[in-house]
Amino acid sequence: MNNIIKRVKYNARRHSGNVGDRPGLVVVPEGALKPHIAIFSYNKDELITSEGKDIKVILSQLKKCDNHTHWIKINGLGDAELIEQIGEHLKINPLVLEDIANIHQRPKFDEYDDYAFSTSRIVRFNDDDELINHQFSAIIKDNIIISFEEDHNECFDAVKARLKAGKGAIRTAGPGYMCYALTDTIIDTYFILLAKIGDKLDAIEDKVYTDADKSIMFNSQQIKRTLIIIRRASWPERDKINDMIRSESPLITPEVKLFLRDAYDHCIQAMDLIENYKEVTSSIIDLYLSMVSNRMNEIMKVLTIISVIFIPLTFIAGIYGMNFAHQDDKGHILHNNIPELYWPNGYPFALALMFSIAVALVVVFWKKGWFNKL
Amino acid sequence: MNNIIKRVKYNARRHSGNVGDRPGLVVVPEGALKPHIAIFSYNKDELITSEGKDIKVILSQLKKCDNHTHWIKINGLGDAELIEQIGEHLKINPLVLEDIANIHQRPKFDEYDDYAFSTSRIVRFNDDDELINHQFSAIIKDNIIISFEEDHNECFDAVKARLKAGKGAIRTAGPGYMCYALTDTIIDTYFILLAKIGDKLDAIEDKVYTDADKSIMFNSQQIKRTLIIIRRASWPERDKINDMIRSESPLITPEVKLFLRDAYDHCIQAMDLIENYKEVTSSIIDLYLSMVSNRMNEIMKVLTIISVIFIPLTFIAGIYGMNFAHQDDKGHILHNNIPELYWPNGYPFALALMFSIAVALVVVFWKKGWFNKL
Amino acid sequence: MNNIIKRVKYNARRHSGNVGDRPGLVVVPEGALKPHIAIFSYNKDELITSEGKDIKVILSQLKKCDNHTHWIKINGLGDAELIEQIGEHLKINPLVLEDIANIHQRPKFDEYDDYAFSTSRIVRFNDDDELINHQFSAIIKDNIIISFEEDHNECFDAVKARLKAGKGAIRTAGPGYMCYALTDTIIDTYFILLAKIGDKLDAIEDKVYTDADKSIMFNSQQIKRTLIIIRRASWPERDKINDMIRSESPLITPEVKLFLRDAYDHCIQAMDLIENYKEVTSSIIDLYLSMVSNRMNEIMKVLTIISVIFIPLTFIAGIYGMNFAHQDDKGHILHNNIPELYWPNGYPFALALMFSIAVALVVVFWKKGWFNKL
Amino acid sequence: MNNIIKRVKYNARRHSGNVGDRPGLVVVPEGALKPHIAIFSYNKDELITSEGKDIKVILSQLKKCDNHTHWIKINGLGDAELIEQIGEHLKINPLVLEDIANIHQRPKFDEYDDYAFSTSRIVRFNDDDELINHQFSAIIKDNIIISFEEDHNECFDAVKARLKAGKGAIRTAGPGYMCYALTDTIIDTYFILLAKIGDKLDAIEDKVYTDADKSIMFNSQQIKRTLIIIRRASWPERDKINDMIRSESPLITPEVKLFLRDAYDHCIQAMDLIENYKEVTSSIIDLYLSMVSNRMNEIMKVLTIISVIFIPLTFIAGIYGMNFAHQDDKGHILHNNIPELYWPNGYPFALALMFSIAVALVVVFWKKGWFNKL
Amino acid sequence: MNNIIKRVKYNARRHSGNVGDRPGLVVVPEGALKPHIAIFSYNKDELITSEGKDIKVILSQLKKCDNHTHWIKINGLGDAELIEQIGEHLKINPLVLEDIANIHQRPKFDEYDDYAFSTSRIVRFNDDDELINHQFSAIIKDNIIISFEEDHNECFDAVKARLKAGKGAIRTAGPGYMCYALTDTIIDTYFILLAKIGDKLDAIEDKVYTDADKSIMFNSQQIKRTLIIIRRASWPERDKINDMIRSESPLITPEVKLFLRDAYDHCIQAMDLIENYKEVTSSIIDLYLSMVSNRMNEIMKVLTIISVIFIPLTFIAGIYGMNFAHQDDKGHILHNNIPELYWPNGYPFALALMFSIAVALVVVFWKKGWFNKL
Repeated sequence: MNNIIKRVKYNARRHSGNVGDRPGLVVVPEGALKPHIAIFSYNKDELITSEGKDIKVILSQLKKCDNHTHWIKINGLGDAELIEQIGEHLKINPLVLEDIANIHQRPKFDEYDDYAFSTSRIVRFNDDDELINHQFSAIIKDNIIISFEEDHNECFDAVKARLKAGKGAIRTAGPGYMCYALTDTIIDTYFILLAKIGDKLDAIEDKVYTDADKSIMFNSQQIKRTLIIIRRASWPERDKINDMIRSESPLITPEVKLFLRDAYDHCIQAMDLIENYKEVTSSIIDLYLSMVSNRMNEIMKVLTIISVIFIPLTFIAGIYGMNFAHQDDKGHILHNNIPELYWPNGYPFALALMFSIAVALVVVFWKKGWFNKL
Repeated sequence: MNNIIKRVKYNARRHSGNVGDRPGLVVVPEGALKPHIAIFSYNKDELITSEGKDIKVILSQLKKCDNHTHWIKINGLGDAELIEQIGEHLKINPLVLEDIANIHQRPKFDEYDDYAFSTSRIVRFNDDDELINHQFSAIIKDNIIISFEEDHNECFDAVKARLKAGKGAIRTAGPGYMCYALTDTIIDTYFILLAKIGDKLDAIEDKVYTDADKSIMFNSQQIKRTLIIIRRASWPERDKINDMIRSESPLITPEVKLFLRDAYDHCIQAMDLIENYKEVTSSIIDLYLSMVSNRMNEIMKVLTIISVIFIPLTFIAGIYGMNFAHQDDKGHILHNNIPELYWPNGYPFALALMFSIAVALVVVFWKKGWFNKL
Repeated sequence: MNNIIKRVKYNARRHSGNVGDRPGLVVVPEGALKPHIAIFSYNKDELITSEGKDIKVILSQLKKCDNHTHWIKINGLGDAELIEQIGEHLKINPLVLEDIANIHQRPKFDEYDDYAFSTSRIVRFNDDDELINHQFSAIIKDNIIISFEEDHNECFDAVKARLKAGKGAIRTAGPGYMCYALTDTIIDTYFILLAKIGDKLDAIEDKVYTDADKSIMFNSQQIKRTLIIIRRASWPERDKINDMIRSESPLITPEVKLFLRDAYDHCIQAMDLIENYKEVTSSIIDLYLSMVSNRMNEIMKVLTIISVIFIPLTFIAGIYGMNFAHQDDKGHILHNNIPELYWPNGYPFALALMFSIAVALVVVFWKKGWFNKL
Repeated sequence: MNNIIKRVKYNARRHSGNVGDRPGLVVVPEGALKPHIAIFSYNKDELITSEGKDIKVILSQLKKCDNHTHWIKINGLGDAELIEQIGEHLKINPLVLEDIANIHQRPKFDEYDDYAFSTSRIVRFNDDDELINHQFSAIIKDNIIISFEEDHNECFDAVKARLKAGKGAIRTAGPGYMCYALTDTIIDTYFILLAKIGDKLDAIEDKVYTDADKSIMFNSQQIKRTLIIIRRASWPERDKINDMIRSESPLITPEVKLFLRDAYDHCIQAMDLIENYKEVTSSIIDLYLSMVSNRMNEIMKVLTIISVIFIPLTFIAGIYGMNFAHQDDKGHILHNNIPELYWPNGYPFALALMFSIAVALVVVFWKKGWFNKL
Repeated sequence: MNNIIKRVKYNARRHSGNVGDRPGLVVVPEGALKPHIAIFSYNKDELITSEGKDIKVILSQLKKCDNHTHWIKINGLGDAELIEQIGEHLKINPLVLEDIANIHQRPKFDEYDDYAFSTSRIVRFNDDDELINHQFSAIIKDNIIISFEEDHNECFDAVKARLKAGKGAIRTAGPGYMCYALTDTIIDTYFILLAKIGDKLDAIEDKVYTDADKSIMFNSQQIKRTLIIIRRASWPERDKINDMIRSESPLITPEVKLFLRDAYDHCIQAMDLIENYKEVTSSIIDLYLSMVSNRMNEIMKVLTIISVIFIPLTFIAGIYGMNFAHQDDKGHILHNNIPELYWPNGYPFALALMFSIAVALVVVFWKKGWFNKL
């Protein structure tokens, strides 16, 4: 398990376009990857797949397989033209196309006359342990679902495997079910992210108890931000699933709604976990601050005890280090000038005096409870 | 009473399965115990019980007692096959079966065509004072209630005793009443947990006033987490009971609803107590931090008073410890070099000076109120 | 006015019974007082009162006065049998009887077929300035209202006096009005409690400005808890009154509802005051913590100024206290060894040097503003 | 502009009466001023005013001007009899009369059969910069509006001036419009109060940046309380205006409702400002606490740097101040006893050593960044 | 990029008028700029523009272009007469005209019989990096939209450009669409502001990690205030857009509502960003405070370690600096007076003793972990 914690940054820009751009203009985000298209056409009996880079592969597959459900999976948003061609072919509102390219959407489910549009956030750690917050969007129309992802990494292997295996409702329940399956898989990735965060929190907390250092504050703050990001993804996700359940569109069949209720429960479980982890993070920070303060307290106590004991002793040594003259210029003894110095046992008496003061002070501190732990 | 407080951990994993598993797949949690089955078939006149380990004992009992209400009590979720067989026999949706095995459900009450599914959280301290947060789930159908618990420990002895005694509505009011009785017993265990927490809080608070040490912070944080966990169990429990009260299913009779209203009140009382304890915990932490800060303040004051009194005195001793020559190389008296040293009463004067300074400083501090408590 | 503030404890146990007890079982709380019964039978023309200890006195009075409204006032819950006999006589649901004996109910108003059940919390300081949080409950049926209080102390003297005086609606407006009158009196006692708390807060705040000590933190925390307890009593009280206003039961006549609207306003005023006092308490704690921190700051500044001024001076005295030899073993003068000591005016120069350093440091601190207040 | 900030106290007592007083009893508050009555009878054409101290002046004016709208303005609540006489004459519910005298009402708008009752809070600084929180109440019936204020100060000069000028709807739109005009003027006084608070906050914030002292904490807390008081006045004021807008009473005409929508907007603007100022106050407190902590830090750093540099130097001086004998009793040189003291250049070497140590420590602190600002 | 952060002030005054002013009175704000009028009359085929300073230019253009949509754009509110003339010409309620001149409106959408009134806040940094919070208001009636801005700066260049280009719905969809276009552009400027804030936050956070100083607290507080201001602008903006979507006015066509749904999403995205930045700001402040406290801790530790090591050593040096007499007045050796001083190796022994004590203390501190980082 890797417990490296990196600085988490928020992404501020709303879109790649300019202020006052015409609504519906598809502007691909800076640095977007070139799209890779995979098409899965399936019915109860067969699964036909093809891959490609442009609209042609889609059109030919749609023509070829006419009584299938089609899942058109597009990884990479770097081709505005492709998005516009798909929109034109399926007669999609340009505002929807703009939202696909504009990668800071909140999860939502928008219904239009004969199609629906759904977005989600894919939040996960990448291989370098950096937090990724990507957009997933899908258009559902007739027997077609087109899904858009930002990168080429594969989150949906399990769905593909179930499609190949052909068990359960996945082959027969239409594009609405596929939309549910993809959404549920995204929520499952939240749990993987949260499990990793849980491990990191455990490691931080162990460190608080064994080997606390400054990194605890930094790391807790980064975890907190990660939790905020995933909370901002999962709260509207819940609302979105709820919108899907209450939708009257024929694309979301009653059978799919039953599964969506299950996904809704999962989403609430994720939100519960997030709240738990937020509380744990706060509690770790409180414990750490309390330890820092205790440490400070302990240091001050040691300083004070040592200082307060030695200050009077050093003063006494200073007294008997003074050079008051024992004789005046004429050799007369000045009896009042530090007579103790001329006692035969002056030194042992002085040491005894110092020792008594030290013991007395220790006793006072003991009585005050300064040697107890606080 | 045992006031040991252990570190409270949250359990992160959502389920034992993998990302993208087919919905409805029953995956038993890692380390689940082998199930132990007990069947209680009862009507107004008699109570017949049997025990076993597999589906056969259930089927034979159901056949034997045909005008009874059956409470099938399963402790241990370690047998996926058993759960699937029960599901098949009673025609239960696979998503429900998945939820039974997936032990991180929130309390909920889901109604289906002719059956209902209910989950709760059993939160309690085990014999080692560790917090247990187990899942309880129940299926109600016709005259049957099947309850699933995670472990073999017995929470429902009181219900069994009332069943044996046969007083009240328990023998006659059907499986809905049994579901109420089990739910109410679970809420009662919350009060036991809260009473224990109350005792622990009292002990911690006593300690703050008598013998405060670092453990207070740790212990308060653990109590806080425990309260969070039980709050996360009881809030949805309340919603669940409310759903049961508003249910139109014939399984929840009006008579049972009257009792559920009572359970609802109990649940709100538990939530009230939880909020109270959260406030007490915060107040203890505030008091403790205030004490730490007061202690620090007191230590600093002692250090300062002692230092500030002795620093000038030591300086004077230092002055008269300087070795400025009384005679030059030729034996001439250097009258300007520390003449005080050659006064007949130089030493008493020096001591008197020091004493006056010390008294003056003490008076200043007195005036400033530093000897008052703050 | 008494400003002693005692430690406020919460009461944890839900009831005196055991987990899984049959619902409806009347278990009197531990240490409950033996009941004392007073019956007030009144109509427009007369008021007949009697007292006693068991059900017989009630039954005989009910028989005797048949066109009266009856207020049966029971102080002390120590007799389960009495509660059950009343329940039997009036045909009250056992769950209601359980709630009367179970003294941790939240304020609520439950309507049944032909009777209603109401609970409130009586929160007040007793004669020892300890916070009392007692349960008040009342059953209203036909022309009877039966009220239950936990102790023998008298909160309702004013109501009895109005009953005797016979002015206003109290004699004619039925048991619903009596229920209103008792509820309104309970809310009035909240204002008395709040006035006491207000006095205590004023005293604490005065102390912050004149003579702050550690007790401020403790006392503020106790006030905070008291406010939490009374808030937990008054919030559901408001909901309860609202339920009464919206009730369609003939027991609550439109005339009574007008008065209840007034009681509702009073309840909201109490809640407003509670919120105000919570803010004041927080503000006192903030001020106190700020004063502690300022005091610390001031102490540190004195320590630092004195130390930093004397440390170099003492160092110089130390320099000239060194014993570097003025002559070698052969009597040669070692001119490099502390020649200052042999200057005719070495001592005045040294004193002047020290004085200059001290003045310079004071000027530096002055410039830095350390002699200003911060 | 006067920036003196006085301690803000909350007023705790609910009313001047006793617990359990008969509802509807008019008890004038302690120290209430004797009432002063002014009557403005106006229609489109004329405005007739008269003044007095008792009910007679009202009755004669009402008789005299029979096709006018009457604004009866009563300043001072010290005459219970007057309030009762007015109530009797207009047939007002005694509960309303009680509320007029009971000066801790929240803003509300209560409708009765043929009249309406409205209360507001007049919150302002008086001439001594003390916060005043007075009650304004008004009864509207037929063509009469009776307003009650607590003191003789004049808040409604502008309304009187508009009445005299006779422009706009004020002369023709009935008592409902007058109620709106008075309410809107009260909200306008909130803005004056808020502008003063804004000035005070600016002054406090300037002080934080230039000349921070302890008063900042005190003053910020007083501002906070003032804001809480005005917030508690304006929140229910908003609800009250909303109730007036949604009222179906013929006293509130559609024309008046249009104006009330405007007043509603003003009220929300006031609430917005209050929230802004609360945030500013918190931010000032945070800045101040941060400055205190920085100051402490700086002081500690100076103390530490000076101490840590001089402590080793003083120690070295102490070493060479020791009196180890150079010769034994027989005059033999003890070569091991502090031979440095007898080096010809011992003193310069010692000084050089001290200087090197000081420089080395300064370099170390420099490297650690202690001379940077933090 | 410019990261200078200036002190952010709130603007308190509600309006330029006086308490109790007649509602509907147009009072231009102090210092308001003289208005500059630009008129854009457009239909599918042509775009006619003219500019001017008074009502005449508007009237002549309206007469000239009778089958066009007119966008009358007024920059500067310094001419009350102009506003009143426009109101008179279009028969606008005086309360609306008052709101145009009263520049502290919250965003709102008010519908009247045959026109609608909309306000927004334009929040942006000006060229001096000061926060500007200006009012934008617009009246829509028939085929006319009149927009009012406070200053002459141009926010709507992009809208003008689209109008000139004539693509999309802008030329054909009426004044409602123009209102949408202006609103959406205002929301776009929020994102520009937020992007700048994001850059500033990044710069502050970088500084925390590299070169923390006092400015961090000040800057974070200013950012927080900026976020509060923009939040107070965007929350009611969202409600306003929602009101527009739900409006049944024919001025807002279904086509425009589709676009408004898009603007609504943008507004929620802005609010999400604001919440994110608030969390980041809090996290920066927490990190900074933690660093200050760590720095303090470190300083205290160095002070303590150095002090505690040297205090006993200096004491020992003091002991052997005492002047107890080795001989009495008669020349007898006083053997008990600091015999160590007369040992042949007294000095090396003393140094060894000091060295051992120093090493022992270092070992103790090492064991206590004081040399670890905390």
